[in-house]
Amino acid sequence: MSTFNVELKKVVDDSYDIEIGFELMDKLIWDLKNGLVGKLRKFAVITDSIVKDLYADKIYNRLLKEGYQADLFVFQEGEKQKNRRTKEEIEDAMLAKGYRRDCCIIAVGGGVVTDLAGFIAGTYGRGVPFINYATTLLAAADASVGGKTAVDTPLATNLIGLFNQPEKVYLDIATWKTLPQRQIISGMAETIKHACLASREFFDYLDANMDKLLQVEQEACEHIAEENCKVKYEVVMKDELESGLREVLNLGHTVGRAIETVSEYELLHGEAVSIGMVAEVKLAYKLGYVTAEERDQVIDLLAKARLPISIPDYIDREMLVKKLYTDKKVRDGKLRFVIQKGIGNVVEFEPGVFATPIEESVAREIIMDM
Amino acid sequence: MSTFNVELKKVVDDSYDIEIGFELMDKLIWDLKNGLVGKLRKFAVITDSIVKDLYADKIYNRLLKEGYQADLFVFQEGEKQKNRRTKEEIEDAMLAKGYRRDCCIIAVGGGVVTDLAGFIAGTYGRGVPFINYATTLLAAADASVGGKTAVDTPLATNLIGLFNQPEKVYLDIATWKTLPQRQIISGMAETIKHACLASREFFDYLDANMDKLLQVEQEACEHIAEENCKVKYEVVMKDELESGLREVLNLGHTVGRAIETVSEYELLHGEAVSIGMVAEVKLAYKLGYVTAEERDQVIDLLAKARLPISIPDYIDREMLVKKLYTDKKVRDGKLRFVIQKGIGNVVEFEPGVFATPIEESVAREIIMDM
Repeated sequence: MSTFNVELKKVVDDSYDIEIGFELMDKLIWDLKNGLVGKLRKFAVITDSIVKDLYADKIYNRLLKEGYQADLFVFQEGEKQKNRRTKEEIEDAMLAKGYRRDCCIIAVGGGVVTDLAGFIAGTYGRGVPFINYATTLLAAADASVGGKTAVDTPLATNLIGLFNQPEKVYLDIATWKTLPQRQIISGMAETIKHACLASREFFDYLDANMDKLLQVEQEACEHIAEENCKVKYEVVMKDELESGLREVLNLGHTVGRAIETVSEYELLHGEAVSIGMVAEVKLAYKLGYVTAEERDQVIDLLAKARLPISIPDYIDREMLVKKLYTDKKVRDGKLRFVIQKGIGNVVEFEPGVFATPIEESVAREIIMDM
Repeated sequence: MSTFNVELKKVVDDSYDIEIGFELMDKLIWDLKNGLVGKLRKFAVITDSIVKDLYADKIYNRLLKEGYQADLFVFQEGEKQKNRRTKEEIEDAMLAKGYRRDCCIIAVGGGVVTDLAGFIAGTYGRGVPFINYATTLLAAADASVGGKTAVDTPLATNLIGLFNQPEKVYLDIATWKTLPQRQIISGMAETIKHACLASREFFDYLDANMDKLLQVEQEACEHIAEENCKVKYEVVMKDELESGLREVLNLGHTVGRAIETVSEYELLHGEAVSIGMVAEVKLAYKLGYVTAEERDQVIDLLAKARLPISIPDYIDREMLVKKLYTDKKVRDGKLRFVIQKGIGNVVEFEPGVFATPIEESVAREIIMDM
């Protein structure tokens, strides 16, 4: 018996820039011409059926005009298409068009597109570079930092995927103008969540500028895009040390995800998270971590963003409680919730533990009263 | 417009050990008990329908006996099953059994199993640890170093996958005893290739010990397993610097892969590579890189290993030349071949370039004469 050691220690630099601005296609082309992806000249533009007409076509045509080789790969819009079959179809289409390892993927769209395209890039030819051109506030708030890419399966959301960092991210605020108002509002929930868990100052900014934001005024939107990146980056980076901090991003999501499911996806993700944040700030108040005033400030800001702050009538509250407390994560009858401390902090219950187990009766009382 | 920099520079240590020996299940269990995969106690044992009865069942039962949680995931044996559908079926079976991120995959089998299971491990829950328990000489010669995992698609071999390093590899020589003689012989081709490209001493060892090796004598087999790891490691490690050196592993493969395809997979991979090595050493002789004596030594060693050294009659040589010279890699009518210099060296034509373009007429002359 003998042992052969394969020594594979190395420094990996996955750093990248997020460009935040208004109309960024020119900047993208400028970057490509200046070596963003080295000498690569073949681009697979991946997008969905809605974003295709709005932006992806323009980027695709511009690439051709600049002398690059490019093809559009379009899938039907919607979270339901973020699955292995769509991944396979795009891979096969890329193979049929002769794409090998010497290409770069450009994802143009919201979180579904960037999640899927980033995953495809991670396994195509054992990994090709990719660029995210993000067209939604939610992508700005959520999908730009962290490197999480994935697809859904019938039995699990986001469980098949990998960590994969893009070469660059473009957050083009101009694209937000074409979003339906309901999408803008929904995207605001993750932004408010970031403020609640990390920055009182950001919270106050949102409170003072919500109207401008909902009208997609450039300067205010650029500011919140930056702040979102900052919060997400700080949380995710610190979690590289496996401090468990990443868990704080679940603020509002424990109740939120359950409502989203029980509503049978009638509610958008951000809408469900908003209701979840209301429930969880009420819980924080009950546990003594926020004052009545702070609790009301959080609820008022969500309302100002025109997000729902109570459970819709068509949702069976009893079923919601049951959904929560039959989750796999329930231990000894208790489910863990992230709790905010005042506004701009989350509670670290003990080193590396950012959620606390709550009994069903306590959660029920809050939910029944919403 | 503003730029937010996501700084993600870090030291990654993917080092691992390859355990080479006879009957290694006890060692595997010992390693698990001593923290090889930390505190994980859930093991998904992935194997194929042949290896299941031979080894995987034993390992699975032993894990249960030792108090671990374990399940067997079995797919139909054969290269054809190394596809996205099999990956999906195993993922769904793992999800249905409640596997989440807190598990470890143990691949028990040859290259098909380790390629597939390593890819599944890379994307399951965005990456779970995996262990390779390799049961073939080919896996020892080829699949243990390099971290390449992948599946095949109708349009491309090994193009969907990722680089993923195992926690540990076990090369259990005892398992080779159950291989059909044809598989042992086929596996020997990659071993001889390693000798031809990297070590005259290893070549002479193979020449002196071929009978022992074909009879799977423990000591000789352990020695070649080690030497295979060493050569592969040196080539792959140096290529971390992107020197292009990895290309030398294609020795014999340019012609070999074409023959494998034209034979409609009647020939095993190693058999086809053997014929390819004969063609390519003849080419090396023609170009003046090996003497007539060295050329004959290579051909004689392949023959001693009972590998085929001429193109079977049922293969249309004209079709083979056509297959080679309609490849995507043909540039200006020339196809690139790795050329060995003497025995134990490959030619570096210029810094980082280990293959040289050869005209169709030159290749045709050699192939027509085989």
